[in-house]
Amino acid sequence: MAAHVHPVQIYYEDTDFSGIVYHPNYLKYFERAREHLLGVDELVRLYRDDGIGFVVHRCSMHFREGARHGDRLEIHTEVRPESEYRLIFDQRVMRPGSPTPLVVGEVQLVCVNQDTRLVPLPKMVLDRLRAAGVSV
Amino acid sequence: MAAHVHPVQIYYEDTDFSGIVYHPNYLKYFERAREHLLGVDELVRLYRDDGIGFVVHRCSMHFREGARHGDRLEIHTEVRPESEYRLIFDQRVMRPGSPTPLVVGEVQLVCVNQDTRLVPLPKMVLDRLRAAGVSV
Amino acid sequence: MAAHVHPVQIYYEDTDFSGIVYHPNYLKYFERAREHLLGVDELVRLYRDDGIGFVVHRCSMHFREGARHGDRLEIHTEVRPESEYRLIFDQRVMRPGSPTPLVVGEVQLVCVNQDTRLVPLPKMVLDRLRAAGVSV
Amino acid sequence: MAAHVHPVQIYYEDTDFSGIVYHPNYLKYFERAREHLLGVDELVRLYRDDGIGFVVHRCSMHFREGARHGDRLEIHTEVRPESEYRLIFDQRVMRPGSPTPLVVGEVQLVCVNQDTRLVPLPKMVLDRLRAAGVSV
Repeated sequence: MAAHVHPVQIYYEDTDFSGIVYHPNYLKYFERAREHLLGVDELVRLYRDDGIGFVVHRCSMHFREGARHGDRLEIHTEVRPESEYRLIFDQRVMRPGSPTPLVVGEVQLVCVNQDTRLVPLPKMVLDRLRAAGVSV
Repeated sequence: MAAHVHPVQIYYEDTDFSGIVYHPNYLKYFERAREHLLGVDELVRLYRDDGIGFVVHRCSMHFREGARHGDRLEIHTEVRPESEYRLIFDQRVMRPGSPTPLVVGEVQLVCVNQDTRLVPLPKMVLDRLRAAGVSV
Repeated sequence: MAAHVHPVQIYYEDTDFSGIVYHPNYLKYFERAREHLLGVDELVRLYRDDGIGFVVHRCSMHFREGARHGDRLEIHTEVRPESEYRLIFDQRVMRPGSPTPLVVGEVQLVCVNQDTRLVPLPKMVLDRLRAAGVSV
Repeated sequence: MAAHVHPVQIYYEDTDFSGIVYHPNYLKYFERAREHLLGVDELVRLYRDDGIGFVVHRCSMHFREGARHGDRLEIHTEVRPESEYRLIFDQRVMRPGSPTPLVVGEVQLVCVNQDTRLVPLPKMVLDRLRAAGVSV
């Protein structure tokens, strides 16, 4: 698949007094990008109608350059299923026009029901991934 | 009643690149203080067992001095019922040993059920306020 | 002036366990909208080159309906100068197609230098407001 | 060294609509704990007087159980120097009285000056770690 691209703008709320983005916030940008990749309306429906959602199981980030107020960045995301229950997202914070990521992350999601029991990835999610060119 | 006092410490997460606390965060400190005044365990039980909770109906803040990383502050809170459904909290961010508040706020809470319908303040809340010296 | 419109999407990060947007977050959306109205690049330049920025002096919010995960909302903003140093922003959270705001807010900004002393609104800001149809 | 213990209480602000703590927030709790371990006043002084601070270089988290509103948790932290410039923190979110962590994390900090160049760990930091029983 080509990486999914989600734009992010850096506001006051994103920074701390050191002048750069407060490091946990990159996980927020990654989460927003994943929602758009999987489909916001589809995720809302899945949770409301079937009580099924995704939770983060593991994540890691490597910080190479701090973003600053006013920066217009992109979250590049690639995804692959790891098992019947799990998706792995490779996510990078990019400055448009530059090949070097500011932050490189990996996030593992698992699919759970309302009792936080593992459930297989729903057909809606698999269809959407296939449509995006992911081998599932 | 004597003002309820809740300590707050300012961390990286609280500031923005201008060097001072990002202004919406004072509403977080006010919320934490109100939870302790009303009783954290009582609020958890009320929501879980009766589906009753508080929502903020109105709020205002006047900012006089910005707090900074490492500051140890206090939230001073006074509360009064405004109606059968509504509590008004006068809340100030204070630097211990100084008479001048950094931020002065007023927050109005209403009590609602799971359908977000107004419900009268529960007995548990009224009892707790009386025990704190509030005329209810 | 016609109201300035800024889109906001509600993500996991915006909500709390009660199911609706955590109330301080609306101040974040208001801040994002003001940045776009005043010009992000212009604000970055003003702070970097002249050490001049805006701080929130007062704010208030009236909450009428809670936004939920997946909502696509708009921040409608109107602005007027209140004095040589101060701007008042009337800001509303709107659901596209509905005339009723979810949240109505007013935010007062003052212009300060690096010593947090009041300074007159810079020409860049006044020009931008005039271009947007504001009487200054 | 014995693990450094820092208490954390879960408020509305920490949760999302799924009912549990929004996953990036655990990085906030880890950061608070590290500040207390290294010394808040010392960190403020180091940054103000010498322009020296810590930035997160890498981090990872493994989520085993979601914390909920009202939970009173502890952050357990152990630290070891990895090089002249770098500290590694092993951090766990614990429920008092339970041996099983809710979240297990590792965070690598590097010491930088105002130009974000690597600088050796300051004597103040090394002394503080030695006093806490860390071999440095």
